[in-house]
Amino acid sequence: MTEGHGDDLYRYGGRIRVNFSTNIWQHADYEPLKRFIASRLDFVASYPEPEPYRLERHIASRLGLRDEEVMVTAGVTDAIYTIARNIAAVGRNGIVGPTFSEYADACFAAGNVPVYFHDAAKAAALSDIVWICNPNNPDGHVLEASFLTDLIVSRPEVMFVIDTAYADYCKASRPDIVAMARLHNVVMLHSLTKQCCVPGLRVGYVTACADTISRLRRHRMPWAVNALAADCAEFLIENPPFIPVDMILSESRRIQHEIAGMGYEVTPSETNFFLCRMPRGSAAALKEWLVESRGLLIRDASNFSGLTSGHFRIAAQRPEENDILLDQLKIWARKYC
Amino acid sequence: MTEGHGDDLYRYGGRIRVNFSTNIWQHADYEPLKRFIASRLDFVASYPEPEPYRLERHIASRLGLRDEEVMVTAGVTDAIYTIARNIAAVGRNGIVGPTFSEYADACFAAGNVPVYFHDAAKAAALSDIVWICNPNNPDGHVLEASFLTDLIVSRPEVMFVIDTAYADYCKASRPDIVAMARLHNVVMLHSLTKQCCVPGLRVGYVTACADTISRLRRHRMPWAVNALAADCAEFLIENPPFIPVDMILSESRRIQHEIAGMGYEVTPSETNFFLCRMPRGSAAALKEWLVESRGLLIRDASNFSGLTSGHFRIAAQRPEENDILLDQLKIWARKYC
Repeated sequence: MTEGHGDDLYRYGGRIRVNFSTNIWQHADYEPLKRFIASRLDFVASYPEPEPYRLERHIASRLGLRDEEVMVTAGVTDAIYTIARNIAAVGRNGIVGPTFSEYADACFAAGNVPVYFHDAAKAAALSDIVWICNPNNPDGHVLEASFLTDLIVSRPEVMFVIDTAYADYCKASRPDIVAMARLHNVVMLHSLTKQCCVPGLRVGYVTACADTISRLRRHRMPWAVNALAADCAEFLIENPPFIPVDMILSESRRIQHEIAGMGYEVTPSETNFFLCRMPRGSAAALKEWLVESRGLLIRDASNFSGLTSGHFRIAAQRPEENDILLDQLKIWARKYC
Repeated sequence: MTEGHGDDLYRYGGRIRVNFSTNIWQHADYEPLKRFIASRLDFVASYPEPEPYRLERHIASRLGLRDEEVMVTAGVTDAIYTIARNIAAVGRNGIVGPTFSEYADACFAAGNVPVYFHDAAKAAALSDIVWICNPNNPDGHVLEASFLTDLIVSRPEVMFVIDTAYADYCKASRPDIVAMARLHNVVMLHSLTKQCCVPGLRVGYVTACADTISRLRRHRMPWAVNALAADCAEFLIENPPFIPVDMILSESRRIQHEIAGMGYEVTPSETNFFLCRMPRGSAAALKEWLVESRGLLIRDASNFSGLTSGHFRIAAQRPEENDILLDQLKIWARKYC
């Protein structure tokens, strides 16, 4: 893997007061999940199912899919690597970006050299496999469900990998999961980490037609998903934490507007997170200053392939927390914008 | 993966009174670990380190290795698949067996067709990569440390993968971990699952020279080890559960002797588990009868490549539990031995 990912909170010990660096709502109520875990501590003593079929059946029935159209993975990252190895290892891989670096890293790990495209239609015209993060990380860009569906239907010879990890933080409609599982050229990635705000658990799932899922399952290793994670996933699907999406999106729009007004370049986003660029100075320096001055953590986005040292990403939090960040960005803007 | 693994306890709901099917001591005291987990439930809300460097440093310092000589994995299975893909994908893979099926499955998944050998020296003479489970699952066979070390040193052109998952349940010396990490042609696999009786967690590690570890790390996916599992691993390394090895081994010898006396064929084993074969009838039928009659679970070993429908595996438990199993095996022997 390349060095440098989003949430490097663990590096800062207890110094962070507000974490804007991860695209996950920071204020979910974890008490029900914690009580559930506390009641299931015996999990440590038993092997999980070699393959998490029970959880797959549960998810399938929730989504209106057949069991053989769902594969559970140890987080979306596991799904990306599994697909890169077993579906995308042969053929031209096109990535619509700048985007999450793991698509490229996983292609490289599978011995393939992917090509970046800015445009999804162009990527589809020139690739055998197209990777699309929708909404896109780091800029929150969303391709309309109808555009995406038409593109997939019009290119049956291309395999599309659609990472919908951030779809729950966005009001734009996403391609219908059941309809997509009827097509033979699309794989959708879903993140319980994001949907349920549980990055510590590592559970995600893939939906696709039975043929594709069978191809992926054939090469998965046994016991890939920790027993506790699988149990928690079932619990969370029935008891998802409340995420105040309307409030978060309205805050996201408000602070995008304010930050743009200070002289930063802001890429308009319909999701909870968005990308900014400073005209001068580096995001790394801003990040360190925000930690030192007020205990605020943002995402230095300069290590996304195609972005610059001035790029950073912010995920909107509560109004009063966002206000602290705005105050600090205003001070910084006087020097660098 | 192939179908059928050892511990299928999860299939039987609450019907099992004693589990002889897994090679793990069933009576470890989990209370300290459970208290630790209960105090760390906030883990669900934070990403783990993208790569578990902290845990690797901890293990390295415990073992007297350098940090770059240890790689943590999501259980030994993850290590096996990672090695199969990144070290063993090219070349002739030889597996000393019958043994744990994942070595072969991982080779197949990496596009390689392995060959089984009964003899380690012959495997080394005819392969580029040799997989050895030591002590061996399912028969408990142990290659002496000196024999193994000499073999590795005498064949610098061969890469040896030594799975020591069961070494803690055995008095036979194992090759010295530090000395092995000085050689360039050996990778050792270690299982916290087995060492600390925690199959639900999925943590293991690989020790090898820095070059080999760097090669493996380069292709690992981020966040492969769940945050809780990494924290628990650190706790367990400092607070390993007590395993009464002397008692278990003496029980293992006792029941091997008794079972052989009933007319079953028993492969002598120096570890807590051993392999048996019935002259007539199937292990599957015996297994079902033991579940139905007394709630006892054994391992039907017929799906190990090279074994027969009459093979089964037993891991010794407490004397009074073993006695119940002996009584039942005696009844069965009247019909089938």
